[in-house]
Amino acid sequence: MAIQKPSIPKGTRDFGQKEMARRNYIFNTIRSVFRTYGYQEIQTPAQENLSTLMGKYGEEGDKLLFRILNSGDAFADVDFEKPLTTQVCEKGLRYDLTVPFARYVVQHQNEISFPFKRFQIQPVWRADRPQKGRYREFYQCDVDVIGSRSQVNELELVQMVDAVFGKLNVRVGIHINNRKVLTGFAEIAGAPDKVVDITVAIDKLDKIGLDKVKEEMADKGLQADGIAVIEQILSLTGSFEEKLAAMRSLFNGGSASGIVSETGLKGLDELEELFGLIAAAGVSAPVEMDLSLARGLNYYTGAIFEVKALDWEIGSICGGGRYDNLTGIFGLPDLSGVGISFGADRIYDVLTGLDLYPAGLEQSTTLLFAVMGADELRYVLPVAKALRSRGIAVEVYPEPSKLKKQFDYADKKNIPFISINGSNEMEAKTVNIKNLVSGEQKAFPASDIEAILEFLS
Amino acid sequence: MAIQKPSIPKGTRDFGQKEMARRNYIFNTIRSVFRTYGYQEIQTPAQENLSTLMGKYGEEGDKLLFRILNSGDAFADVDFEKPLTTQVCEKGLRYDLTVPFARYVVQHQNEISFPFKRFQIQPVWRADRPQKGRYREFYQCDVDVIGSRSQVNELELVQMVDAVFGKLNVRVGIHINNRKVLTGFAEIAGAPDKVVDITVAIDKLDKIGLDKVKEEMADKGLQADGIAVIEQILSLTGSFEEKLAAMRSLFNGGSASGIVSETGLKGLDELEELFGLIAAAGVSAPVEMDLSLARGLNYYTGAIFEVKALDWEIGSICGGGRYDNLTGIFGLPDLSGVGISFGADRIYDVLTGLDLYPAGLEQSTTLLFAVMGADELRYVLPVAKALRSRGIAVEVYPEPSKLKKQFDYADKKNIPFISINGSNEMEAKTVNIKNLVSGEQKAFPASDIEAILEFLS
Repeated sequence: MAIQKPSIPKGTRDFGQKEMARRNYIFNTIRSVFRTYGYQEIQTPAQENLSTLMGKYGEEGDKLLFRILNSGDAFADVDFEKPLTTQVCEKGLRYDLTVPFARYVVQHQNEISFPFKRFQIQPVWRADRPQKGRYREFYQCDVDVIGSRSQVNELELVQMVDAVFGKLNVRVGIHINNRKVLTGFAEIAGAPDKVVDITVAIDKLDKIGLDKVKEEMADKGLQADGIAVIEQILSLTGSFEEKLAAMRSLFNGGSASGIVSETGLKGLDELEELFGLIAAAGVSAPVEMDLSLARGLNYYTGAIFEVKALDWEIGSICGGGRYDNLTGIFGLPDLSGVGISFGADRIYDVLTGLDLYPAGLEQSTTLLFAVMGADELRYVLPVAKALRSRGIAVEVYPEPSKLKKQFDYADKKNIPFISINGSNEMEAKTVNIKNLVSGEQKAFPASDIEAILEFLS
Repeated sequence: MAIQKPSIPKGTRDFGQKEMARRNYIFNTIRSVFRTYGYQEIQTPAQENLSTLMGKYGEEGDKLLFRILNSGDAFADVDFEKPLTTQVCEKGLRYDLTVPFARYVVQHQNEISFPFKRFQIQPVWRADRPQKGRYREFYQCDVDVIGSRSQVNELELVQMVDAVFGKLNVRVGIHINNRKVLTGFAEIAGAPDKVVDITVAIDKLDKIGLDKVKEEMADKGLQADGIAVIEQILSLTGSFEEKLAAMRSLFNGGSASGIVSETGLKGLDELEELFGLIAAAGVSAPVEMDLSLARGLNYYTGAIFEVKALDWEIGSICGGGRYDNLTGIFGLPDLSGVGISFGADRIYDVLTGLDLYPAGLEQSTTLLFAVMGADELRYVLPVAKALRSRGIAVEVYPEPSKLKKQFDYADKKNIPFISINGSNEMEAKTVNIKNLVSGEQKAFPASDIEAILEFLS
């Protein structure tokens, strides 16, 4: 067979030892926080039926699904007059963790005790055009609670974000909005279908100024009364409490349109309760209401979250919100949930950029026994075994080689201790260990594992 | 959109919280042992180019590859006169971890320091017909060292098997053979192309008896001299050392054919060295030479391993061997390696069958704060936070509900402690905690986290 120059599909990555150590550090930190809040891990298969996936991510999303050719002879009974793709592919690779989670909840509803608190850390696949920071295979890390409408769930998500980034030593700002408030704005502006346009306008004020925003709103077809309402919204200033009071007045018929928005008022109640709970529980990161926040707008029905690193420019590193009908499409309506997703790749980039990985993360082996000959090799095997059984990572160089080569190996693997033993040590029943960082060298009775452990620690 | 009854593709599985806790226990045990031997984790993408995968698993394996339809319009430039599959699919899902590992080593050879000790725990996909215990998506758990011919590597694999199953409390037997010895048998039987037939014959002696084995060998085309050699091999008895001496004599021209096998002698040297190292290092599980062991015969070139559970009938739960040219097909010849693969699903079944999971594995939350009202909820939030920051898994029931419902929730989630607090506790600044297993109940100052921790431990 001809020799092949090996490569991997574009947009995919190998993770070597260093990347894995760093990624495991991030995932294990996140996992440990999720666990202290009583969230439990589940996993779903990489392949889902296309009937589960299609139509959930919009037309654009459907195009980005990786489809799997039916096994056996996929083309055996095909009607070539009809579109082929749907005839030869019944399964696709999971595109996110949200739809498989909804499918899971419905399929296993009788085994689940609600409120159901789960997390899931698995790769997803999208046939996006690969570019810097965008991959065709990447991990998502989702935490959701489903089956409770209480704002305590929103609070817990905020607390978990705070705890995760506290542990990772990343300073973050937590931005919170509420979809019902945005709906309220559109309602009192007399344009309930223009939620997105109005949210975008709120976001643009700083950049383009009030006049341009009003112009743009007129272009979008907003009437004069509506534009006046937008102007009132954009003039909101002051503390959280002052803004809340001003919005309550607008929603209560006090806006230029005089329209009352019950939805908007409900949204304010939710925001007020959530911020009260955050104050009662105590959260270290700054949390602010951000009326321009609109991620996944057509999907969320209550709280909307976004988290940004304060010391590294990279966009959102975590986000999510409340959804009221995730499982409806699979036949289980009216199950409200709320969740957030941690962006593993971006968090990785932030930690790398700010040099926040703990020292020693990439050091995997503590002690290397250099090997001078077959007898010396056998001599150290029981010592190596005893240390390993105490959890110390020990390597025995597999064959007698030049010491230079063995030292190079220790150096490349960042191994901080080396043990070199010859006939003298064998006779004296000792092992000689050198700290390659400090230069300190000491001999120990081969049987005194405790003393060796102390020297290595 | 019509409501869909959700399901997953046949041969795939969802893993709920209980399964995940058990699987993580197995994987983390294996991982921790690999680490104490200096093996480091890598991951490769789920999708590989079909050019990497094809032709590596035989004709049957090629048919079992899951192929991914090219993205965009896969059928746009297709020549319908030619086979379609190869035109519309360039990528496939990984079928095992071995070929991606070989591809990885060649692709990253300049970054790797040899001997390269890696492990990899990831799912693989095969379009096999699903049946009991056989899935289309399942995890493999491979550990290999590549770039060293020393038997110390074989020793370490045996030690790791011993340590893993020791930690899991599964009694196992470790079977070892050597491909060179099997080659030697075929050579001195004058039939170097009949390695498999001869190995099968050795294995059948107990079941069908010597005469039938000889008959079968004659049917397979073995000459009289060769059959006489087989008879000599089948008559090998005694201790490991006695068998070794007898085989050495056969390979040295002392067999009925008088043929000398250098390969067979080399195999005996390797077996002798490995068993010597095992004795020097000390291994708890019984290790035996098993001349009938032939797994992956066309692939292995030296040691062959197989591990069986002694107390549960399930076949091999772990196996592997040495290979000398894994990376040759990708352009890096003469790189010898040795590795084993742990069968996660079978190990799971053994632990389940023998009831060997540690107590408390499925208990994820330690303490539930029941909630009677909005004030009581806010009162316990700081206590919950303080306990969580000390690593205790705590849940706060998200809304005031009937106590019965909250107790049921604790019961279903196996939560052993519940805390119920009302106006009395709020006034006294205490929290009341009940051990649901022992019935013991105690009040603590809300600020005395240490005392609470002790009660929960």
